[in-house]
Amino acid sequence: MRDLIALASKPEIISFAGGLPAADCLPLEEVQTALEAVLTRDGARALQYGPPFGPLKEWIAGYMRGRGVACSAEEVFITNGAQQALEIVSRLFLDPGDIAALESLTFTGVAQAVQGHGAHIRPVHLDLETGVDVDALEAAFAQEPRPRLAIIIPEFHNPTGVSLIAEKRQRVAELAARYNVPVVEDDPYSPLRYEGETLKPIKAYDTANAVIYQGSFSKMLAPAMRLGWLVAPRELLPRITVLRESIDLESSQLLQRTAAEFLTAGYLEPHLQRLNATNHTRRDVLFEALRHELGDVAHWTAPQGGLFVWVTFNTALHTGELFGAAIAKQVAYVPGMHFSTNGGYTNTMRLNYSNATPERIVEGVQRISAVVREALAKP
Amino acid sequence: MRDLIALASKPEIISFAGGLPAADCLPLEEVQTALEAVLTRDGARALQYGPPFGPLKEWIAGYMRGRGVACSAEEVFITNGAQQALEIVSRLFLDPGDIAALESLTFTGVAQAVQGHGAHIRPVHLDLETGVDVDALEAAFAQEPRPRLAIIIPEFHNPTGVSLIAEKRQRVAELAARYNVPVVEDDPYSPLRYEGETLKPIKAYDTANAVIYQGSFSKMLAPAMRLGWLVAPRELLPRITVLRESIDLESSQLLQRTAAEFLTAGYLEPHLQRLNATNHTRRDVLFEALRHELGDVAHWTAPQGGLFVWVTFNTALHTGELFGAAIAKQVAYVPGMHFSTNGGYTNTMRLNYSNATPERIVEGVQRISAVVREALAKP
Repeated sequence: MRDLIALASKPEIISFAGGLPAADCLPLEEVQTALEAVLTRDGARALQYGPPFGPLKEWIAGYMRGRGVACSAEEVFITNGAQQALEIVSRLFLDPGDIAALESLTFTGVAQAVQGHGAHIRPVHLDLETGVDVDALEAAFAQEPRPRLAIIIPEFHNPTGVSLIAEKRQRVAELAARYNVPVVEDDPYSPLRYEGETLKPIKAYDTANAVIYQGSFSKMLAPAMRLGWLVAPRELLPRITVLRESIDLESSQLLQRTAAEFLTAGYLEPHLQRLNATNHTRRDVLFEALRHELGDVAHWTAPQGGLFVWVTFNTALHTGELFGAAIAKQVAYVPGMHFSTNGGYTNTMRLNYSNATPERIVEGVQRISAVVREALAKP
Repeated sequence: MRDLIALASKPEIISFAGGLPAADCLPLEEVQTALEAVLTRDGARALQYGPPFGPLKEWIAGYMRGRGVACSAEEVFITNGAQQALEIVSRLFLDPGDIAALESLTFTGVAQAVQGHGAHIRPVHLDLETGVDVDALEAAFAQEPRPRLAIIIPEFHNPTGVSLIAEKRQRVAELAARYNVPVVEDDPYSPLRYEGETLKPIKAYDTANAVIYQGSFSKMLAPAMRLGWLVAPRELLPRITVLRESIDLESSQLLQRTAAEFLTAGYLEPHLQRLNATNHTRRDVLFEALRHELGDVAHWTAPQGGLFVWVTFNTALHTGELFGAAIAKQVAYVPGMHFSTNGGYTNTMRLNYSNATPERIVEGVQRISAVVREALAKP
């Protein structure tokens, strides 16, 4: 998929393939102001080694409490983005041959993290309207050998854009406790809501401390901060601390302090408003273009935030096999099979709408439609 | 050791325990200038996801060529500091139960990285004047089961300050090739030379591509950059790239670009001159204080750069057991046994001299001497 996205990054290609925040929405001035404030105030301490930055942990704990998660700064662990959090939990819980329960469609980095530690994936059906099938999840938890870990992306799910409905969130937390399977809630996208009702994270329903939450500043602030966090049971934190030290010691003091300054200075809310308004417009443009161009041959998910829409063709069109024709027509998407953990989804594609202008979105969908109709016209 | 260094960080304690660059020598203004230049020039690209930053790789390749290593940017891999490089090579080469050949004294992060992947350590005697014993290294390579990896700190070795002499560097490279044991050259300190002749890295003698070099910007620029690099055989790089993606995706674009700007703007050389002049003075003060206070009961290494001096007592004084008494007298060091891979070195200590003023160095050694003499006076 790395090669595919590289191929799609040429400027003449209209790419729905990436997962990047809109470049024109990154909070450049605010980050610059925060950096200057930190260097002026903290001086050399901002360039030195140091323990996890307390005010950043405090801000995160307050943010999590605001989302309904009982949480103190002591339960927050700073990571280099969500991917390092995935690596840490995979390494903590998985030995070669263990089972990890993953959604039938999931972010490639999730599968990479667990397979990197030799785990086998037990796919759990993802419903494209309401999120992971909780009965299937219970069956996966009950089956021997039991999974040692489950990873669920509850909000504006990558790749599908689906949000797990509230009653299922509660059920997931209950299942984690009942079957003693740690559930990792991978949640980088929830701040990117532009429509509909805010949902509490799974962790908010977790009375048994069986859920590990992971958040990320990559999408809500900027990818180059390389900062994310875990909210984990207190008894796990000494092991996480020692493990992190052996992996790469610590996160940058400069970036931790700059993120804390950005957040406590109140830059987040207006930034998210701008970002989400832009994404909202672009999603609407995409929806309209899809209806117009592909309404008779495909259907798609209805995300209320995040970066992705998931398109399923009504026939057995193989989007992987069409990819070369799409590139020839200078448009790119990610064939859905790349996110599949059960071998299916060959007639699907992930479309990222956050990083193209409305004009290019319309033009891009027209190109996809042309490719699709050529394929459908073949005997 | 984390707890020990935390204990030693109280301001009333004169600490020789850390491994921090001198705070007053960190290039604050230059980093600030570089950051501003990057944000002005690159805008949102500096906050976005992105591939490893080409100009930084190019600078590193040129720097390595200047040190005698035939190297192109394609063989350079950017990491989050040397610790992530250690993690990557450990994960690439070691499975549980494998043997890793390490020096009999080594940085704790080296031991943590290999043990974190289940490897057993085969200690190789470190000569405190000329560096690792190459005959012992050959014996360790020849013994079955053969090591899958060796890690050597060639220059201003942590914890001892020892530099591996040139003829031994050549021999290490030859042994790596002859016995087919990949040797990792962990070299964060070589830019910190203030005295004596510059030595080529082991990698410069490596005609068989059996040595993996790792450098770090933590000591030569600033720890909070969280940047280091590997120079690795070309055929390993695809595996390293995929592995890194699963570990934490990538290093910060902002920090990579800022480092590249700092380096290409010519800030490195004057910064190193100031830094090394300061360290030189502090080492001389430490030597003089040691001669005056402990000359009759101990001897020590003679580093020509770096951050550490290694003190060995002439009798079986247990520096670990003295640590409480030292803290009570408000002075701290690291008991040498914490760096030992063979269970010895209980009568040694590591002293960091870079991060205390001359006055505090003198006072600190007087306090250590008082603790030591009380212990020696006991029957």
